[in-house]
Amino acid sequence: MNETIETLKSHVSVRKFKSESVSDEMVETIVEAATRASTSSNLQATTVIRVRNDERRQDIAKLAGNQKYVVDCGAFLVWCVDLYRSKMACEMGGGEFCAGMTEHFVIATVDVALAAQNAAIAAESLGLGICYIGGIRNDPAKMTELLALPKQVFPVFGMCIGWPQKKSNPKPRLPTSITLMDDIYNQNQRQPLEEYDQLMESYYKDRGIEDRTWTSFMSELLGKESRPHMRSFLADQGFDFK
Amino acid sequence: MNETIETLKSHVSVRKFKSESVSDEMVETIVEAATRASTSSNLQATTVIRVRNDERRQDIAKLAGNQKYVVDCGAFLVWCVDLYRSKMACEMGGGEFCAGMTEHFVIATVDVALAAQNAAIAAESLGLGICYIGGIRNDPAKMTELLALPKQVFPVFGMCIGWPQKKSNPKPRLPTSITLMDDIYNQNQRQPLEEYDQLMESYYKDRGIEDRTWTSFMSELLGKESRPHMRSFLADQGFDFK
Repeated sequence: MNETIETLKSHVSVRKFKSESVSDEMVETIVEAATRASTSSNLQATTVIRVRNDERRQDIAKLAGNQKYVVDCGAFLVWCVDLYRSKMACEMGGGEFCAGMTEHFVIATVDVALAAQNAAIAAESLGLGICYIGGIRNDPAKMTELLALPKQVFPVFGMCIGWPQKKSNPKPRLPTSITLMDDIYNQNQRQPLEEYDQLMESYYKDRGIEDRTWTSFMSELLGKESRPHMRSFLADQGFDFK
Repeated sequence: MNETIETLKSHVSVRKFKSESVSDEMVETIVEAATRASTSSNLQATTVIRVRNDERRQDIAKLAGNQKYVVDCGAFLVWCVDLYRSKMACEMGGGEFCAGMTEHFVIATVDVALAAQNAAIAAESLGLGICYIGGIRNDPAKMTELLALPKQVFPVFGMCIGWPQKKSNPKPRLPTSITLMDDIYNQNQRQPLEEYDQLMESYYKDRGIEDRTWTSFMSELLGKESRPHMRSFLADQGFDFK
C-alpha cells in the first residue's frame, strides 16, 4: 500500500469544518490537478466556479436543502458541464456546433466527474476534507441564474473544501465480490445484499439510527420520483437528449 | 507538492503496454480503492466487469474502433452504470423502483466516473498506466450483449490497465485562468482560447501533425453528430430521461 492509495481508502465526506480559510494558492493547485484528469478527445468540458460571495453562498446553502457547510467551508466550488466553451471553440474552428446530442451529455458529465474526483483527492492529500453537494440540483434553474451560466452549461454538483473538524470512519461499501465481475454480468446478488444489509444495519445503529438497512434506505430513495424537474431544466439549457 | 499530487499531475493515457499481466490482487486493490469514492446517498451505482476472455476482448477491441491495446493491456475493465442492483435493493426494501428518471441517470453516471477515477489513480500510483476507452459506446448494444448486461445497466467506458512501455509528457490543458472562475460565469474566453490554440498547434506539430489547433480539432469533433444511437440504446436499457 502506498500513500496515494491510503488517501483514497481513508475518504469520508466532511461536513464540519474549522473556520480557517483555504488559500487561493491551494484552490489553484487543486483545480490544476483536476485539469490533468483524462478528458474525452481533450474536450475539457469542465468549468469550476469558486463561490466567494457570502450572500451567494447562503442562497446556495438554502436551495441545497439548508446545508450549512456550504457557507462554513473554506472554499466552495461548483462543477459545471461546459459545452458553451466547446461550442465557441467549434465555431472558432469553422464548424457549426451540433447541439443536444445525448453522447455529448454523457462525455461532458463524465469529464466533469473525473476532474472533480482528481480535485477531491488532491484536496484530501493536502489534509483538507471535502463533500460533494448534489443538493444544488434541487433548483438548478436558480443555480444557473445565481452563477449567470449561459446555455450549454449546467451545474452538476457543488464541492465543499475545508479543514476538517473531525473525520469519521469510512462507511462500509458493497464488497468487490459483488461490484467486480468476471466477463459477464452476474444477476445473482440477493445473498450478498442481505449480508450487506446486516452490516449497514449495525453501522446505522451505532450512529443512533434504528431499523435502517441499505435496501430499506434504497427503497426510500428510489421508490419515488427524484428531481423530476431535471429533464426540462436540462432541455432549457440546450441539453435535448437527441 | 506531495506524492499524490505528483501522481495526478503526471497522468497521461497509455496505449502501449508490456506483455506482463496485472495480478488479480492488484485489480482487487484498484477496484477496492474505486469503491471508496463518494457516491450519491451511498447508492453505489457502479459495477466493474473485468474482461478476461481473449475472444471477448478481441470483439471489444474491434467494435471500439480497432483499439489493439484493449487486447494487449494487462487488465481490461468495463465500467457500468448499474441500476439493476439498485432496483433489486429498492424492491428488497419494499419499494417499487421509479425507473427512467433523468436525475438517476446523472447521479449514476457521476458515481461511475468518480469510482473509475479513483481506480485510475490507484493504478497509476502503483506504476501502472491506464487509458479510458469511450469507443465501447460505438456499439453499446453489442457491448451489452457481450457482457450479458440486464436492463438498467449500461457500459459507460472501458479502461485499459497495464505496465507502460513508455510514458509521454502530459498534454497541455486549458489554463485555470479560463477553467476556474470567480462567482459568476465569464463568457469572455476568445483570447485565451486563441493562445491555447497556438500552444496546441505547436504541440501537434512536434508530433508530426500539421495545421491542427484545438479549435480546429473541436470543430471536427463537435461539428457533426456523435454516436446518434446513444439515445435509443439507453431507452432500450430502461434509461428514458423522464
